[in-house]
Amino acid sequence: MTKYLITGAGGFVGCLLLNHLGTRNEPKIEVLALDVRSPRTAFPAFPFSFRFEAINLQDKERLETAVATFKPDMLIHLAAMSSVAASWEDPTGCISNNTQIILNVLETVRLYCPRCRILAVGSAEVYNTGGRDEHSPPLVETSPLHSVNPYALGRQAQELIVKFYVEQFGLDIVSTRSFSHTGPGQGGHFAVAAFVQQLLNAKNSGEKTAVLKTGNTDLVRDFSDARDVVRAYDLLLLKGKSGEFYNVCSGRGVSLRKIIETAAGLLDLQTVITVDPARLRPNDPNYIIGSPEKLRTQTGWTATYLLEQTLRDMLAVR
Amino acid sequence: MTKYLITGAGGFVGCLLLNHLGTRNEPKIEVLALDVRSPRTAFPAFPFSFRFEAINLQDKERLETAVATFKPDMLIHLAAMSSVAASWEDPTGCISNNTQIILNVLETVRLYCPRCRILAVGSAEVYNTGGRDEHSPPLVETSPLHSVNPYALGRQAQELIVKFYVEQFGLDIVSTRSFSHTGPGQGGHFAVAAFVQQLLNAKNSGEKTAVLKTGNTDLVRDFSDARDVVRAYDLLLLKGKSGEFYNVCSGRGVSLRKIIETAAGLLDLQTVITVDPARLRPNDPNYIIGSPEKLRTQTGWTATYLLEQTLRDMLAVR
Repeated sequence: MTKYLITGAGGFVGCLLLNHLGTRNEPKIEVLALDVRSPRTAFPAFPFSFRFEAINLQDKERLETAVATFKPDMLIHLAAMSSVAASWEDPTGCISNNTQIILNVLETVRLYCPRCRILAVGSAEVYNTGGRDEHSPPLVETSPLHSVNPYALGRQAQELIVKFYVEQFGLDIVSTRSFSHTGPGQGGHFAVAAFVQQLLNAKNSGEKTAVLKTGNTDLVRDFSDARDVVRAYDLLLLKGKSGEFYNVCSGRGVSLRKIIETAAGLLDLQTVITVDPARLRPNDPNYIIGSPEKLRTQTGWTATYLLEQTLRDMLAVR
Repeated sequence: MTKYLITGAGGFVGCLLLNHLGTRNEPKIEVLALDVRSPRTAFPAFPFSFRFEAINLQDKERLETAVATFKPDMLIHLAAMSSVAASWEDPTGCISNNTQIILNVLETVRLYCPRCRILAVGSAEVYNTGGRDEHSPPLVETSPLHSVNPYALGRQAQELIVKFYVEQFGLDIVSTRSFSHTGPGQGGHFAVAAFVQQLLNAKNSGEKTAVLKTGNTDLVRDFSDARDVVRAYDLLLLKGKSGEFYNVCSGRGVSLRKIIETAAGLLDLQTVITVDPARLRPNDPNYIIGSPEKLRTQTGWTATYLLEQTLRDMLAVR
């Protein structure tokens, strides 16, 4: 019996990860799923032993009780305030939440189950992306770091904390630098899900042309399907090297405009794009493209969804 | 009228800094001194307008009220859990306290007095000191960083946070990387003060030989007199460059054994040194010597106390 503890399990990625664990056909796992509150929709019946508990990871005592009792073999830390936009509204709230919860998780593991293997999900936002353009080589794990938003800063602090717990306390932690990802079920405060929702609204209202409110659609990002991302997380937990950081990305850049056009085409819609200043973020870099080479080489991961398929699934068109 | 807010004002360095501000002969300053609790001994009468308030900087609301009301022109952030030994007892307590309080201080300044000039006191513990020996050049501000104790990790996170607030919010922050310092009034949980106390106890008991309990006395450190350190802080607040980090150090290394011998000599005592395992710290580097060149060049600071004078003053011998 392998015991998995998953933080942030009620979120978009958490739910996909639980589904993925269910498809692996290994009945001998037991999952304790944590999130700050119960998910809006009930979890489905999983083909493994499953329990959910609502715990705020800032509440160290409740976390300690849960970990000391459950004693996980594997821990996947997905929990985080993950919106860059929201991090500008409350910089200290985001920075301190995300650093405090990784500290609490690692310290609790150190005290109660120090041999537990941990996957610490992090972000490609930590990279120095200033001045990058279409000629820049993709970001690799040794590329320089530089945080230009509060969310990124919290993630960079998380990396320092993780390295410290690996080096000083011998904890077994693999980390990701996850790039953009999307898929069915993502919340509408992320760009692609917001586009999809607006396009579906127009289609359902019988419009021929969708008028979309967007941020800067010239931005080029490296998008993966979140279902591929959770497979990467599972593989990294099994095969990643402790103390190392891994890009989780497709290696391909696509502009947000191109995503809108592709999705609109699938619904047979024309589009008119209007920029909503409230959706522009400070310091949003033009190009963020990563190299998944290290992930591929060390785990055998490859992406299985092309972006068009992801959009089809989000729009529920065939 | 220049208004100074000083955090950690009740500590050893805070009290020396207040004394120093009193000697500058500038009556037109007003000081609001904060500390987590009232100091054990009352503050003397200062030749400037002075008020003390007991505030835990983790209590953001009380800090905001104090800052919004006082609206300082200058802020000297001395507050921190500053014991490396204690940081090993409670890693997350130290890391999260020291990062949370700098976040609260900077965010409060950003919201209520964004033009306030700030001195953020940090530590030379952030440097990578692994493998350094008597042939290594002194540490300069561009030397690589690597935290090997929880206290250092909190200080390294503080540096990330400071850089972020300078770059993204335009705050005016000068930072120090302070090396070891000591002087009259330092608490006995720091090495030199502990030696002095043990030597004075032996002398006062009429012993000819003092039997000292110590940690590793072969360690070489760069010691300054704390009265020189507070002058450096004052000069950096006036002349340091925003966003920059400054070593505060003497440039000279001395072994802890040599300090004990010098102090014992001043009291005419022989010494027997016994190593107390409880005073050995994990990862304590052999050599930490810094270069004060940047501080000297940019502020004109020079040390005025030689170590023997510092020890004389701590032992109260002439």
